[in-house]
Amino acid sequence: MHPLTEQPVRMTAVNEPFADPSTSIEEIFRSTYLVLRDSGYAGVSIQRIADRTSLSKSTLYYHFDDKYDLLMQFSEEFLSWYLERLVEEYEGDAQETLSRLLDIVLLGEADDGVLFEDVFAPGYIATILEMRAQAVRDQEMRTYVTVTDEVMRDHLVALIEDGIEDGTFIDVDPEATASVLFVFFEGGLLLRSCEEDTEWMAAVRDAADAYLEEIKQHE
Amino acid sequence: MHPLTEQPVRMTAVNEPFADPSTSIEEIFRSTYLVLRDSGYAGVSIQRIADRTSLSKSTLYYHFDDKYDLLMQFSEEFLSWYLERLVEEYEGDAQETLSRLLDIVLLGEADDGVLFEDVFAPGYIATILEMRAQAVRDQEMRTYVTVTDEVMRDHLVALIEDGIEDGTFIDVDPEATASVLFVFFEGGLLLRSCEEDTEWMAAVRDAADAYLEEIKQHE
Repeated sequence: MHPLTEQPVRMTAVNEPFADPSTSIEEIFRSTYLVLRDSGYAGVSIQRIADRTSLSKSTLYYHFDDKYDLLMQFSEEFLSWYLERLVEEYEGDAQETLSRLLDIVLLGEADDGVLFEDVFAPGYIATILEMRAQAVRDQEMRTYVTVTDEVMRDHLVALIEDGIEDGTFIDVDPEATASVLFVFFEGGLLLRSCEEDTEWMAAVRDAADAYLEEIKQHE
Repeated sequence: MHPLTEQPVRMTAVNEPFADPSTSIEEIFRSTYLVLRDSGYAGVSIQRIADRTSLSKSTLYYHFDDKYDLLMQFSEEFLSWYLERLVEEYEGDAQETLSRLLDIVLLGEADDGVLFEDVFAPGYIATILEMRAQAVRDQEMRTYVTVTDEVMRDHLVALIEDGIEDGTFIDVDPEATASVLFVFFEGGLLLRSCEEDTEWMAAVRDAADAYLEEIKQHE
């Protein structure tokens, strides 16, 4: 168990999305992140998000059609922010970025000591699972989940294309490779969040490594 | 979208768990399956399950401590039943059984035309996702999810051990191999259930196939 209240706040580069908002949109995203983290998807409403900004509810409706529109744009921004942060940290090294992502979700810790819980707040992951559960039967939520997953895969595609371009990877199909890595990544993310014993995931990390090794350019 | 109500009932061997209950326990499991399928996890209570059996609520409490105990035993039985059915159909061929499982979750259809929706009722999958979301913060649910996932991995371990024994697979570590296949399987299951576009998963099926090919015994 890692209830949010007992989680130590770690000042890593990756655990503070939209920490220093400079525009209304960023302020709204910051608040959305906090509401999702603290109350889960069930707690999300335009009113509640507005309450944690300096803005009025009507300002939020000026920027976003509705809650879904906001959540969809938030997810895109959140994932983009997160992945760009990782890429930046590794100076664009695709292989290192992917390895780090896989370490965090499959081993629970990156080699610099950043923990899974530092990056993925339990409340946020619970929200993702709640939305996925709702998406099984709700068309609007299904579209939302699909778009969010596509954004994530597109980022992986871009990383792999960078790796091909700079000679790190062989000439693989970036879409296909991203799809495989997405299942390792998202599968690991979802399973780690809700299981007590995650030791078994180390074997999955090894398999992901073998997969990356196969697409690596060797002299 | 595939709401249950519009889903055609297909008379395949795999879509009728506990269809012909011959004991009280089986009758309870049958009812549990129907309640989960129709109402999701939120709809589950000992009362509701009793209502769809010929038994009294106190008979249910005679057999199970509480709702969690019932759900935990149900999941074990359901998964065991499902996997045994598959193994039976393939006369114990581990490779074919695994291929079929992966076809169903990653391609959405087995080669005999059985669809993902025939095997995994949307209501049941939504329930699994709801329970996983709850497990992020709830210790009791977390134990339940962990045990259920272990049961699934244990079945995969048994399949791989059979395959090693009969010379289908090389002498791999059954636990490690089962862990990797579990992420392909469970990741595919969760993602297919909540996405609109699942074409990208064909590439994951190819990767799973390459993985199986690597552990296959070649002359």
